[in-house]
Amino acid sequence: MRILGIDPGSRTTGFGVIDIVGKDSVYIASGCIRTPPNAALPRRLHIIAEDIFEIVKRYQPQVAAIEQVFVNVNPSSTLMLGQARGAAIAALTLNGLSVFEYSALQVKQAVVGKGKAAKQQVQHMVMQMLKLSEKPQADAADALAVALTHHLRNHLMMKNLGARKVKGGRFV
Amino acid sequence: MRILGIDPGSRTTGFGVIDIVGKDSVYIASGCIRTPPNAALPRRLHIIAEDIFEIVKRYQPQVAAIEQVFVNVNPSSTLMLGQARGAAIAALTLNGLSVFEYSALQVKQAVVGKGKAAKQQVQHMVMQMLKLSEKPQADAADALAVALTHHLRNHLMMKNLGARKVKGGRFV
Repeated sequence: MRILGIDPGSRTTGFGVIDIVGKDSVYIASGCIRTPPNAALPRRLHIIAEDIFEIVKRYQPQVAAIEQVFVNVNPSSTLMLGQARGAAIAALTLNGLSVFEYSALQVKQAVVGKGKAAKQQVQHMVMQMLKLSEKPQADAADALAVALTHHLRNHLMMKNLGARKVKGGRFV
Repeated sequence: MRILGIDPGSRTTGFGVIDIVGKDSVYIASGCIRTPPNAALPRRLHIIAEDIFEIVKRYQPQVAAIEQVFVNVNPSSTLMLGQARGAAIAALTLNGLSVFEYSALQVKQAVVGKGKAAKQQVQHMVMQMLKLSEKPQADAADALAVALTHHLRNHLMMKNLGARKVKGGRFV
């Protein structure tokens, strides 16, 4: 199972690819899509969408996970972030990928174990879980964290389901 | 010259296709992309992007024009609208189309002649200019209006350029 995590942003969109091998998560790739801040909006959204096409083509993930974004205090920033996120999600779905959304709270809970964890703790846990010797860029680390979140939450769900008894074809 | 106009929205995205034949604008097609309000966000954005792919394939426009959106008082609505607009623009640029953005003010000025025109006046002028016997749906009419805006503004620019003198390869 290969998961592509995306951390959308108006200037920088992080991506991270991990493989799930048995119980282990294995680092495959990560990086950032950067858009020139002075370019026109359609050009910036095109770069995001096109780069995601390229990443999907290269790494062939089976599923995508993306961070839910905060509504910013600045409405123009919210609009811009929404547009970048919309372009990213459209590019993922156009490639036939199912896209799962996770809030920052869910990511922290899954990766660190508590919803109030600092950003640095999340990055530290990403490095530990994926056995990275170097710290990835912040946006790439966030993308890896959301990919890990998808795995950890599904793994947990499967474990819980496994613990439940089946009677007459139904969980009881 | 065939222009595709898009009026992005979180629930309904209007589209309108016009041809420019000499000085005339000719109606080709228009309609609405509707997304089920209860569907998950990735699914809704996928419908917008995929339908735009389909529209571009069917009508083969040479250029796209899209309305700039207002920053809404409700931040979640702004985010949602931004995401829909981002998906639409990404789909247009992925099809190799140049995308031009026009504000509501620019649309009103171009189509009605004054920036403070009511929405009904814009729709009325769209019907007049494209010789439509029936009133199109509101979002489709807005999409046709933005396509007309692209034509009218370019036409005006060309006329102004044509009136200027060229000396040594430069406009003087």
